[in-house]
Amino acid sequence: MPVATHITEAMSSSSFIRRMFEEGLMMKSRFGADNVYDFSIGNPDLEPPAKVARMLAAEGAEAKPGSHGYMPNAGYPETRAAMAKKVSGEQGVEIDAGRVVMGVGAAGAMNAVLKAVLSHGDEVLVSAPFFPEYAHYARNHGGILRSIPAKEDFSLDVAAIEAAISSKTAALIINSPNNPTGKIYPAELLAELGAALTRAKARTGRAVLVIADEPYREIVYDNRKVAPIFPVWPDSVVVSSFAKNLSLPGERIGYVVVNPASSWAQELTDAVIFCTRVLGYVNAPATFQRIVAECWNEKVDYSSYLKRRNLLTGILDEAGIEYSVPEGAFYLFCKVPERRVTSGNPADDAAFCDHLKANHVLGVPGKGFGKPGWFRLAYCVSEKTITLSREAFKKARIEW
Amino acid sequence: MPVATHITEAMSSSSFIRRMFEEGLMMKSRFGADNVYDFSIGNPDLEPPAKVARMLAAEGAEAKPGSHGYMPNAGYPETRAAMAKKVSGEQGVEIDAGRVVMGVGAAGAMNAVLKAVLSHGDEVLVSAPFFPEYAHYARNHGGILRSIPAKEDFSLDVAAIEAAISSKTAALIINSPNNPTGKIYPAELLAELGAALTRAKARTGRAVLVIADEPYREIVYDNRKVAPIFPVWPDSVVVSSFAKNLSLPGERIGYVVVNPASSWAQELTDAVIFCTRVLGYVNAPATFQRIVAECWNEKVDYSSYLKRRNLLTGILDEAGIEYSVPEGAFYLFCKVPERRVTSGNPADDAAFCDHLKANHVLGVPGKGFGKPGWFRLAYCVSEKTITLSREAFKKARIEW
Repeated sequence: MPVATHITEAMSSSSFIRRMFEEGLMMKSRFGADNVYDFSIGNPDLEPPAKVARMLAAEGAEAKPGSHGYMPNAGYPETRAAMAKKVSGEQGVEIDAGRVVMGVGAAGAMNAVLKAVLSHGDEVLVSAPFFPEYAHYARNHGGILRSIPAKEDFSLDVAAIEAAISSKTAALIINSPNNPTGKIYPAELLAELGAALTRAKARTGRAVLVIADEPYREIVYDNRKVAPIFPVWPDSVVVSSFAKNLSLPGERIGYVVVNPASSWAQELTDAVIFCTRVLGYVNAPATFQRIVAECWNEKVDYSSYLKRRNLLTGILDEAGIEYSVPEGAFYLFCKVPERRVTSGNPADDAAFCDHLKANHVLGVPGKGFGKPGWFRLAYCVSEKTITLSREAFKKARIEW
Repeated sequence: MPVATHITEAMSSSSFIRRMFEEGLMMKSRFGADNVYDFSIGNPDLEPPAKVARMLAAEGAEAKPGSHGYMPNAGYPETRAAMAKKVSGEQGVEIDAGRVVMGVGAAGAMNAVLKAVLSHGDEVLVSAPFFPEYAHYARNHGGILRSIPAKEDFSLDVAAIEAAISSKTAALIINSPNNPTGKIYPAELLAELGAALTRAKARTGRAVLVIADEPYREIVYDNRKVAPIFPVWPDSVVVSSFAKNLSLPGERIGYVVVNPASSWAQELTDAVIFCTRVLGYVNAPATFQRIVAECWNEKVDYSSYLKRRNLLTGILDEAGIEYSVPEGAFYLFCKVPERRVTSGNPADDAAFCDHLKANHVLGVPGKGFGKPGWFRLAYCVSEKTITLSREAFKKARIEW
């Protein structure tokens, strides 16, 4: 048995998201792109701001010496300074470039943070439902992801989180706007969380590092604001990327910002830089570091996501499928409808996603998100795809 | 103590290469670039082929929809096909695109391979001296790097490797041309290695995965050839990147190719793809995947490395510093000279590198490479830097 047993086991229970995405690519080539309604993955279909292409063209025209070479593991000083400016504005706290570490996407950035703080057997808390990859990221570095069910409206259950904290708790991941629910945590809730973490620290003697994973921060509806974590809890980092807001997911460009209020801000920053290096990321890709340093503040019109949200919820209403209305991001988290025709566990989300797939609709079962009985639809797809999916959803509902 | 203890410990004994590189950047801004002779890091100063810039310009001009989006974790089919063609030629074995996984540099690719095969406590063998990061890469995934001293001429000691193999041995890393020695392993030596691995497998019941780390394959002197591993041992992978041969180290673009002759080729490929995903690399950067698919076969003139090698060896001869003549790559591995003036352990490589640094020459102690008493000079720097370093080397030798 040459592949490690724990890897073979992890693979067999692995992410439906990627499986569905790759199955979708095959179905599209077989049935035609218009005949497959692929809501499987958060691959934004908005194009990057025009400045990205202009900068690429200029990079090509200039071909400056050394521009594809190594730079310090933390990133170019100019890029770190730009991220510090961006996150200072978001968090309402003055942040120095020295607190920024560029990463290979938010995923690479989060892995570097988790490796920096996890000792073998440590726990990482997360509110369920959650992005399933978090479980792998914790396990990569000897940790264990422990999920705490959210409240019924999908907001954080602060009391339950506080109760779950022990001296084994190294970190808490919060993700607002949330994938898969689109929930945004308001400032009062984060203030409550800060108070709970203060009490927990007094009880356990260990500070829990809050990792605010914010790739969807810019994608919000009805003028909502994503509240900052830095003012309410010193031992915190923001992890984010330009995958969603600048639509550059394939370029793997993200960052970590360490809260300057933390008493171990320097030590943690150094450890994240070290882990970025030894995990083999080495540095965030050079050309796109220069691009995001200039483009992070480009105005992007996200209103089409709202339009698409409303288009898809209209179709689900018509089909008779319930969902939670997202406040941000581009996912609809939906309840598996009651069975009327087929037999089996009424809320079996994997069976329902298979049933949807037979109707050429690709969604992802809720089980992997820690919430069985639900499923996720990513609506960062064309309006045409959404519109064309209408009959498929209705048929799937009727025949279920 | 919020940073994990094992990380703090690893950091304190961490790579001199990066420390020297970052110190060099500071020294250059203080003393002027012409007054610091920075031989610390393998950051190639050759520029990428002109086609890279042309492709970047074209990418910018076209701005094709979806070109910065996600693709399958293994990479674009076209890029995988191009790498299969490249490595088929190098290994003399027909390779299908399905055996290729694109990675975030060779470092990312190797981490994905090691995670795929290592169970807790497994050993990874390597011939010393070796690239120091290998120790971290093994440890990241619960493994232990075990180094086997090379023969006196820095070639592989196959008998010693065979003797070291036990049922705990998951992998063997070979690196030809070698960093830091520039040694190339001839075909007969690899055939001997294949025979030894066959005997070891019969003895232990476990096949050792050979990881051939080949980032310097194209950079060879005197028309030497880098012998292929695939024909001599089925359980093998090639890991490489375009950091050195196309001078794109900052762009983090590499790959793994699994030997199609392995009886678990499909299983291992799937596991490497899975590990690429869950380690947070997700995929190799999109734009540079397209670029290397078109540019991998560009002709690059590496003759300047030979010229620089000869320039630097001339200076070392003059100064009276011994070295091993590299057959490839762009590193000179040198012996710490006998002390005549200063006191202390005569072969103390860290002290000698400090002494060089006081003379504005940056090299890296051999201890981190598993070979105390030696030091490494990376000569992928301008001829001017090499020429200007002459007096500094002479002075350092005289005053040591």
